[in-house]
Amino acid sequence: MAEKTHYAYRVDPQWVDFTMRASVAALTNAVLSVAGVDAQRKGFGTDTLNKENFSWVLLRMAVEFDHRPEQYTDFSITTWVSDYGRMMSTRNFTVQDNEGKIFGRVVTQWCMIDLTTRRPIDLTTPTIAENYGKYLVECPSPTEAPKRLGAIDAQVKVVRDVVYSDIDFNRHVNTLRYLEMMLDRLPLERFEQDRPLRLDVNFQHECRYGQTLEIGYEEREECDLFEISSEGTAAVRARLEWR
Amino acid sequence: MAEKTHYAYRVDPQWVDFTMRASVAALTNAVLSVAGVDAQRKGFGTDTLNKENFSWVLLRMAVEFDHRPEQYTDFSITTWVSDYGRMMSTRNFTVQDNEGKIFGRVVTQWCMIDLTTRRPIDLTTPTIAENYGKYLVECPSPTEAPKRLGAIDAQVKVVRDVVYSDIDFNRHVNTLRYLEMMLDRLPLERFEQDRPLRLDVNFQHECRYGQTLEIGYEEREECDLFEISSEGTAAVRARLEWR
Repeated sequence: MAEKTHYAYRVDPQWVDFTMRASVAALTNAVLSVAGVDAQRKGFGTDTLNKENFSWVLLRMAVEFDHRPEQYTDFSITTWVSDYGRMMSTRNFTVQDNEGKIFGRVVTQWCMIDLTTRRPIDLTTPTIAENYGKYLVECPSPTEAPKRLGAIDAQVKVVRDVVYSDIDFNRHVNTLRYLEMMLDRLPLERFEQDRPLRLDVNFQHECRYGQTLEIGYEEREECDLFEISSEGTAAVRARLEWR
Repeated sequence: MAEKTHYAYRVDPQWVDFTMRASVAALTNAVLSVAGVDAQRKGFGTDTLNKENFSWVLLRMAVEFDHRPEQYTDFSITTWVSDYGRMMSTRNFTVQDNEGKIFGRVVTQWCMIDLTTRRPIDLTTPTIAENYGKYLVECPSPTEAPKRLGAIDAQVKVVRDVVYSDIDFNRHVNTLRYLEMMLDRLPLERFEQDRPLRLDVNFQHECRYGQTLEIGYEEREECDLFEISSEGTAAVRARLEWR
């Protein structure tokens, strides 16, 4: 059995919003960067996988923050893989301040795909399980797994083209931008107070350079619901709960 | 006389574009972060100035990159203030790889303003000059000063609202986003090859949350020209020269 690993971070000026606190999108982006770096260090990062024409794809995530730290605040991110099955692997994170107090909990679910067929790879295949299994940590996820989200009844819809600064090396829209596109639909007042929140996101379909996206928003009781679609197909759904 | 100061950086995954190289916007953003941190460390950062109700405003910059480093590349940024007059201070940067080879040169011009009147402060006022003058470094700018740019003859214009993720603590559009808005107008092929470039930017007017921006683009010989305007007033002009 392996141990959890830790990464030191600092709230850079470009991460903060008008409240001088790190945005939810920036904090989530830091967490996903840790996923990439940790996988790379352990030999199952995208760089290694690409040699076999495989890659990781993020399916769903749940992100909870009790508060958002201010500019220049030091904090750390702890990560571990708690389990994997044929189709899916669960990577967990806690985010803590310099006194060790946890203020963020993240659960992410990934599948491995074959880049040619775009079909999932069975993670229990012995050659994969052999390398991957030794990094499992016997510790459950720090919060409830990501919810599966249904269609929304959008009250507001905006349209936006996918542009150069939105895309990653696959020319697909990157996760940071999806989060920004959704959160940008909310009134500024939502961010004025530093409220605890939980964000569930489902990634259903990849959006490409040159496509036109429709970003839908529905306000429902204590939740903000979002759906980004392209060419009539839902690509990303999210549910933001203020606590 | 003071010495130049140095800051270590690394190309984070979120900085790279589809070519897996740091984008011009991300590299420029790193340089401007250094300006903020270096000013803060020396006691004339925005945090100190704000106590007197003053702030720095970026007027113009010139950015040259011979190439754009790949993801995870270590590099460093060196900065120094070379001179200041009544109205303007010049902060310089070189960007170098781990062998010390300079691949980026940046010249920025700033004024100090009174946040209430929004008028410039005379930097030669003794109380200011006393603190500021001791950090001057006797070394000229590493390249030609930023050009003053005229109006463009836009062939393409797009319209875009200022949203939550665009704004800084003043609720003004941040520099990273201005650069992205402009570079997003270019065809992807412009970035496929890692060509040397020089970018001149003039900041003429601040854009606020809720405003609608018009982003104009003109292709002129070996240059790409841009103008962002809001409510009929030119806010940012830029000239990108491919070398």
